[in-house]
Amino acid sequence: MKRPSAVAILGCGTVGGATAALLLSQRSMLAAKTGLDIELRYIVDKDFSHAESLNLDPGLFETELDKVLADPDVLAVVELIGGTGIARTLTEKILRAGKRVVTANKALLAKHGAELMAVAREAGVSISFEASCGGGIPILRALYDGILPNRIDAFYGIVNGTCNYILTEMMQKGNSYQEALKEAQEAGLAEADPTLDVTGGDSAHKLAIMSSLAFAQRVDLESVPVQGIDSLKLIDLNFGRELGYVVKLLAIAQSEEDGLALRVRPAFISTEHPLAWVSGPFNAVSVYGHAVGHTMYYGRGAGGSPTASAVTADIISSCMGTADTVFSTLNIWPDRTKKAVLLPQEDIQGRYYVRLMVEDQPGVFAQIAGILGENQISLSSVLQKEPYNDKADAVPVVITTHSVREGNLRTALAALDKLPVVREPSICIEILDEHEEIFA
Amino acid sequence: MKRPSAVAILGCGTVGGATAALLLSQRSMLAAKTGLDIELRYIVDKDFSHAESLNLDPGLFETELDKVLADPDVLAVVELIGGTGIARTLTEKILRAGKRVVTANKALLAKHGAELMAVAREAGVSISFEASCGGGIPILRALYDGILPNRIDAFYGIVNGTCNYILTEMMQKGNSYQEALKEAQEAGLAEADPTLDVTGGDSAHKLAIMSSLAFAQRVDLESVPVQGIDSLKLIDLNFGRELGYVVKLLAIAQSEEDGLALRVRPAFISTEHPLAWVSGPFNAVSVYGHAVGHTMYYGRGAGGSPTASAVTADIISSCMGTADTVFSTLNIWPDRTKKAVLLPQEDIQGRYYVRLMVEDQPGVFAQIAGILGENQISLSSVLQKEPYNDKADAVPVVITTHSVREGNLRTALAALDKLPVVREPSICIEILDEHEEIFA
Repeated sequence: MKRPSAVAILGCGTVGGATAALLLSQRSMLAAKTGLDIELRYIVDKDFSHAESLNLDPGLFETELDKVLADPDVLAVVELIGGTGIARTLTEKILRAGKRVVTANKALLAKHGAELMAVAREAGVSISFEASCGGGIPILRALYDGILPNRIDAFYGIVNGTCNYILTEMMQKGNSYQEALKEAQEAGLAEADPTLDVTGGDSAHKLAIMSSLAFAQRVDLESVPVQGIDSLKLIDLNFGRELGYVVKLLAIAQSEEDGLALRVRPAFISTEHPLAWVSGPFNAVSVYGHAVGHTMYYGRGAGGSPTASAVTADIISSCMGTADTVFSTLNIWPDRTKKAVLLPQEDIQGRYYVRLMVEDQPGVFAQIAGILGENQISLSSVLQKEPYNDKADAVPVVITTHSVREGNLRTALAALDKLPVVREPSICIEILDEHEEIFA
Repeated sequence: MKRPSAVAILGCGTVGGATAALLLSQRSMLAAKTGLDIELRYIVDKDFSHAESLNLDPGLFETELDKVLADPDVLAVVELIGGTGIARTLTEKILRAGKRVVTANKALLAKHGAELMAVAREAGVSISFEASCGGGIPILRALYDGILPNRIDAFYGIVNGTCNYILTEMMQKGNSYQEALKEAQEAGLAEADPTLDVTGGDSAHKLAIMSSLAFAQRVDLESVPVQGIDSLKLIDLNFGRELGYVVKLLAIAQSEEDGLALRVRPAFISTEHPLAWVSGPFNAVSVYGHAVGHTMYYGRGAGGSPTASAVTADIISSCMGTADTVFSTLNIWPDRTKKAVLLPQEDIQGRYYVRLMVEDQPGVFAQIAGILGENQISLSSVLQKEPYNDKADAVPVVITTHSVREGNLRTALAALDKLPVVREPSICIEILDEHEEIFA
């Protein structure tokens, strides 16, 4: 009693190859578990050198997408080309041909998700994108299924394995950012051009996708403030450790009275928080629901095989029909929701770590405290250390604040940076406290 | 465009009350997100004093289940009576009336799951039980959906919050088991009669349910070896800590060549393992899939509100139709799978911590080493400590083994316990190393 279902993979790179290998090598296991006989019928690409290196059957290779779309047995096409150019055009074409789309393309979803969903809806099919966020971690399923009954109050995600690997190396080995990046590249965990990862762009894509589902509000990617890890200094990681914190590149989303507070940035979290334990290339997302409280989802956020797991889960639900049902029934998809009101960055309320490099002379702290006070910045702790370099005539002053308005702090820091006794631009890192579980 | 769906709750205790409160107070939020207008139409019970204490509308109270089952608008009934007596009879009755069942009843599922599923199938409906394992954590959805494409190689779960709270208290505060149990009771985290929790029975129910889905094999609850935390001594937790381990009550499942190796027992895991960080009443399950590698799911494993989150997720999928689709399509449900072959406990291969209390005299260790050697027990480390009590004439010898057959170790320990120099029955605790990620 197995339902036959043919599928095609479009783009045979790392994830495409791993997905093909999974579908082919585990076909009988998948059929036994799912009751569906999923046949990989086509691998569509221009160049099959990677596919050949994996010893995939050349009988599957096809250069003409039109031929695939004309095959009435094909239920779903897996888009693994990446990017927002040709991938966008072809995704539309696939949907208009009445085929379901499964994709791992976070940039495409973050930028054109609503528009593509509208096309899918018009064509009476669905678009599934579990693999776009958190690699193999079924985090989107948690949001649209497992904890759907909750009003989501916040989520905090480590969603870029490259950055997490680099930060873990810096903290555990005392390496500089540049050294750690080089190690990540040598370990195959960072691209030759790591820009999209280390500047936070990739995390922002995932934040936009996850926020849209979590809060059932369409998030405009361009409005999300993004800061990367590429300017982090080891000295701040070390001061953070003394204070009981580790730094992580976080995708942060909080639902506040006046709108969503979203940002991607390196932030300090307590070593007691489960996210602090997530090391190396692993990813994790902590989600806070009004009924369920704190839940966390952990796993490999990238790599061919883990991503192929998520892609194949979507292939199964596309062939089984549940993907169509949730896509047509639920109202949380970006093409059905209103545009989110985002809190301006300066209106974010948070706690912050600030490091100032100041001249080691009397009266300096009074000047600093004066400016902070004028801006309603209330201090939680102050740490003044011996000069960290014998030759330096400036000493670090490390301050942590109570909850303050970020705009006030930025104003204060701009004023501090102009003081003659402040020798370097101030460093400011948000401290993210554990989100309160509300249960109401 | 909201589909009307009426549901009933059977049994209004802690979880029933929390589910009713969630459905009623969040009805418009749920309708906005799901596109379903889920109406809680009946609360069925004999006694409504708890329901009244929650100020639930008495218009919902109904003592006659038959009347509910005769209402054609009712799509699903939520069974929250608990136990395997009347709950079993009524669940059958509900299913035969053509209503979907949503349940949090782990004992019922572990003991009569296959039989009840067969009834559901005959009646053309489904039975959903996310809340039976891990409270609010969507762990069953991970197994039947999110990481379904994987051959599951193993999973390790902390699935009893009472035990985890007690063990966390023992380790963090140095309290004895009895003191920690008393604290848990005072904090409302342990029942007055904590037997089912602390002896591991509750964890075994969850192990049976999760194993059945993870491995698509029907697990006979009675065949699972179960050991609780009620005989754990602080001295062993302290020795474990010195060796880099923490003790957790674990539901352990490994897929081996000759069958499934299942057990519930207190076990040592490395402080580096994500499960080691799970403290207090939180639960978590680490699952190892052949494609996705290590994934972990974390959250509150009990309590009215978190459990109501899982129950409501099942209500939604029951009303939306996806519960019926996965139940009718997939072949992993216990009524459709073969009975699992379980590895006998003595054939489990593992590493172990052993503590012997021996007379402090020459030649003792030679006797111990001799017996271990005869039984092919190879040692990984040996720690002999000063007497831990001035008056004691016995000293602890702590051994960790390499991977050995558990049967051999048990034979060796029985022989050791008969040695005149061994003063107390030996203590043996499994050491669970990180499961290798396979990706093949």
